[in-house]
Amino acid sequence: MASAAPLHPVARQALLAALDEGWADPARLYREGRRARLLLDAARETAAAAVGCRPDELVFTPSGTRALHDGVAGAMAGRRRTGRHVVVSAVEHSAVLHAADAYEAVPVGVDRAGRVAPADVAAALRPDTALVCLQSANHEVGTVQPVAEVAELCRAAGVPLLVDAAQSLAWGAVEGGWSLLAGSAHKWGGPPGVGLLVVRKGTRFAPQHPADERESGRSPGFANLPAIVAAAASLRAVRSEADAEAARLSALVDRIRARVPELVPDVEVVGHGTLRLPHLVTFSCLYVDGEALLTALDRAGFSVSSGSSCTSSTLTPSHVLKAMGVLSEGNVRVSLPAGTAEADVERFLDVLPPLVAEVRSHLGSVPAPALDADLVVDSLGKLCPIPVIELAKVIGEVPPGGVVTVLSDDEAAGLDIPAWCSMRGHTYLGSAPAPQGTAYRVRRQA
Amino acid sequence: MASAAPLHPVARQALLAALDEGWADPARLYREGRRARLLLDAARETAAAAVGCRPDELVFTPSGTRALHDGVAGAMAGRRRTGRHVVVSAVEHSAVLHAADAYEAVPVGVDRAGRVAPADVAAALRPDTALVCLQSANHEVGTVQPVAEVAELCRAAGVPLLVDAAQSLAWGAVEGGWSLLAGSAHKWGGPPGVGLLVVRKGTRFAPQHPADERESGRSPGFANLPAIVAAAASLRAVRSEADAEAARLSALVDRIRARVPELVPDVEVVGHGTLRLPHLVTFSCLYVDGEALLTALDRAGFSVSSGSSCTSSTLTPSHVLKAMGVLSEGNVRVSLPAGTAEADVERFLDVLPPLVAEVRSHLGSVPAPALDADLVVDSLGKLCPIPVIELAKVIGEVPPGGVVTVLSDDEAAGLDIPAWCSMRGHTYLGSAPAPQGTAYRVRRQA
Repeated sequence: MASAAPLHPVARQALLAALDEGWADPARLYREGRRARLLLDAARETAAAAVGCRPDELVFTPSGTRALHDGVAGAMAGRRRTGRHVVVSAVEHSAVLHAADAYEAVPVGVDRAGRVAPADVAAALRPDTALVCLQSANHEVGTVQPVAEVAELCRAAGVPLLVDAAQSLAWGAVEGGWSLLAGSAHKWGGPPGVGLLVVRKGTRFAPQHPADERESGRSPGFANLPAIVAAAASLRAVRSEADAEAARLSALVDRIRARVPELVPDVEVVGHGTLRLPHLVTFSCLYVDGEALLTALDRAGFSVSSGSSCTSSTLTPSHVLKAMGVLSEGNVRVSLPAGTAEADVERFLDVLPPLVAEVRSHLGSVPAPALDADLVVDSLGKLCPIPVIELAKVIGEVPPGGVVTVLSDDEAAGLDIPAWCSMRGHTYLGSAPAPQGTAYRVRRQA
Repeated sequence: MASAAPLHPVARQALLAALDEGWADPARLYREGRRARLLLDAARETAAAAVGCRPDELVFTPSGTRALHDGVAGAMAGRRRTGRHVVVSAVEHSAVLHAADAYEAVPVGVDRAGRVAPADVAAALRPDTALVCLQSANHEVGTVQPVAEVAELCRAAGVPLLVDAAQSLAWGAVEGGWSLLAGSAHKWGGPPGVGLLVVRKGTRFAPQHPADERESGRSPGFANLPAIVAAAASLRAVRSEADAEAARLSALVDRIRARVPELVPDVEVVGHGTLRLPHLVTFSCLYVDGEALLTALDRAGFSVSSGSSCTSSTLTPSHVLKAMGVLSEGNVRVSLPAGTAEADVERFLDVLPPLVAEVRSHLGSVPAPALDADLVVDSLGKLCPIPVIELAKVIGEVPPGGVVTVLSDDEAAGLDIPAWCSMRGHTYLGSAPAPQGTAYRVRRQA
C-alpha cells in the first residue's frame, strides 16, 4: 500500500535474463551489441503497443521524472517562438510543476474531487500558450482527468498537450489526441530506473540536454537495457491482467470508501467516487497527527503514505489536497498493490478505528462546550493538527452565530480550518495577516 | 573485449537481494521506505570510500553521461559570474565535449600518445575561465592524464577541475585536489543505470534541472535503488581485486602491444606505453576497412570496438585519434574484461594476422612501383581506407622527391594520409580545398 510496488514476477524474470543477454552497448557492431540492439527494439515495440503509439515515437528515459522534465523542456523549446506560457493543472505531480516553473506557468484549479474542468483549461489558453500539461489521473487521490476532452480542445487551439500518464499506464492506454506522454516503469511493477517519453510525430520538439545520439537524441546516457527489457515485459504482463484486477481492486476501494466514514468519526474521504483509479483511496481524519497515524499503521503492518504537512520535509500540506480545498490533517493514502486480498482490506478496516482513536487520545479530547462570548485561540508555534483541535475545543464556548478567531503560523491551518468548517457546518469567514502569523475567523453554526 | 562488460557476480547477487529489499521509496516513512533509506545510505558510504570523498559530497545519477552533463551545467552555473569559458582536453568523452558546447569551450591538444601537458592547460586559463574538464584516463586509447598536476594548477588559479573518472574508478581513486568527479557503474562491473557525481564541499554548484529534493537536489527522479546497491557492492568487490588484476591484465596488454606490430605489417599501436589503463589497448592497421575487420574478429569470437570512420554512424573518425594525429584506419580497440585468460590473448594474436591479411586482400594489394612523373589520384566518393590504399599504390610511380596529389572527400583522409606519411617516411605537404573535396599533397621520400 505505497507509492512504489515490489517488482512484478515477470519483470524479475526478464531482468535476470536480460542481465545475462543484454549487458552490451546496443550501439556496438559486435555480436553482444547486436543482441542488445534486438532486445532494445523488442522492448520499444512492446511499450509502444501498450501506450498506443509508433515505436519511433517512444524513447526510454532513466525515470518518469526525467521523462517529464525533458518532455516539458523539449516541448517548450520546440515552441519558443509561440511563447513561454504553459497551462498546468494545479494537481500535477511536482515533477511537472517544477519543470513548468522555468516558464510562465499558470495553474488551472480543480473541484473538491480533484478534477479539472475542460472549460477552465480552454479559458486559460492564450495566444502565447506553448504547452498544456494534464495528468491522466492524480497520484495522491486517484481522480481521473478528462484527458480526451482537453486533448480535443488543445488540438483545436493548436497547442500540444503533455500527459503525465504515470499513474494510469498499468491500467490502460491514455485515450485522445495528446501530443506528448510520460510514464514510469516502477508504477506498473517494472524496476526503477526506467521511464518513457512519447513525442507524437508532428509535435515540435527540441531536446534541451547536450547532444547525444542515443534514443533518437531525446535521452542521453548508456541505455539501462536489462531494466528496460524488464519494464516492457512487466507492462505487457500487468496489462493482460488489468481489466480483471481493476474490477477486483476497485470493489475493495469501494469497500474502504464506504466503511471508513462509518467506522471512524470525523473522517473525510477525498477524491472522486467513480472517476478514479481502481487501486487508490485517500481519506483525512480530523484531530489526527498524520505522522503518528502512519507510524501506528506501519507497526500494524500497513505501509501507507500521507499528504499531511507533518509528514512532509517542508512541513507544508500536499499541494493536491490544498488545490482541492479538502482537509489535509490526518491524511492517509492507501494504494492497493496488485494481488491485494480482501482479507488484507478487512484487517485494515479492523485496525484503523482503534489506531485513530489512540492517536487522537494523545492529542487531548474535544471537551463539552460551555457558552461564552466571541473569543481568540492562540495556536502560534503549534503545528497541524493542533490549531484545528484547539478550535474544536472552544467552538462550543461561543453562542450559535458567535465568532472564534484562531491565530496560527502553520500554513496547513489555511487549508484545514476551512475544511473543518465545511465538515462541521460552521462558516469560515476568512483570514487576515496578524502581528504574528495569520488570524482565521470562524462563525459557529446558528 | 568491449566498452561495456558483463555484470560482476557480486553485483548480480546484490541486485537480486536489493530487488527484494529495496524496491520502496526511500523518502517514505513506512517500514519498506526506511529499509530502502538504509540501503541507499550504505551504498553511498561504500561508493564515497572508494572515490575518496565524504558521503554527502556524492550523489547517484542515472548514468555517467547524466553525471557529466549535470556536473558541467551545475559547475558552470555556479560560476556564471566568472564567465562562460571552459577548458577541456581535446580527447574528453563526447558527453563532456557536448556538455561544454553550450558554453565557450576551448580544447587543449594532446601529444601523439594522447596525453595533455599541464603547461598547455595553464596557458589556456583566462580570467573568465569557469571550469576545467580533464578525464582521469582516455576511454579509447587508455592514456592516463596528469590529473593531480592539473588539479594543483587549477587550485592555484581558483578554477574548479571536473574529472571524468569513468575509465579508472574500477582501478583506484583519482588522486589530487579535483573539485568535481563523475563515474559510471557499468564501467566497474556494476549494472547500467547508475552513475555518480561528486561535488567537493566548497565548490560552487547550482543544479540546472527543475527542483527535486532527492539526492541533495542534484539528481532528479526516483532512486534506482537495486541498481545503486549492486553498483556499490561491485565497486567494493572490483577494488579488492584491483591491484592484482591490474598487474595481470597489464602484462597481457604489454604482450599485445609488443606482438601485434611483429605479427601484422603496417600497424601502429596508439596510446602511451606505460602511462595507461591496465586493460585497454588500441592499434590501427593500414589498408584495412575497420568495419570489415570488426566483423571478421566478431565471427572469430572477439568483440572489439573501433574508432575508424567506417564504424561510426557519422562516418567521421574518432575525435580522440584525430586529436592525437594518429592513423584511424583499420582501428581496433581491445578492452580486456576482468578475468581474461592468457590463452584468450594468445588466441587473439593467432587469429588477428590472417584476418587482417584477408581483409586487406579484399581491398586490393599495393602493387610494385613503376617510376613516373608527379601525378594525381582521384579518390572522390571513396571512403577510408581506399584513399590511402590508392595513394600507397601509386607512390612508387613517382621518382623520389616527386609529389602525389590525392583528391578525397572523406574527412578521414585528412587524418590518415598524414599518419601514413609519417609511418612510411614520406613528407606530407598539406591540403587545400579542391573543386570537389580536398587535395592532399605528399612528397615521396628521397
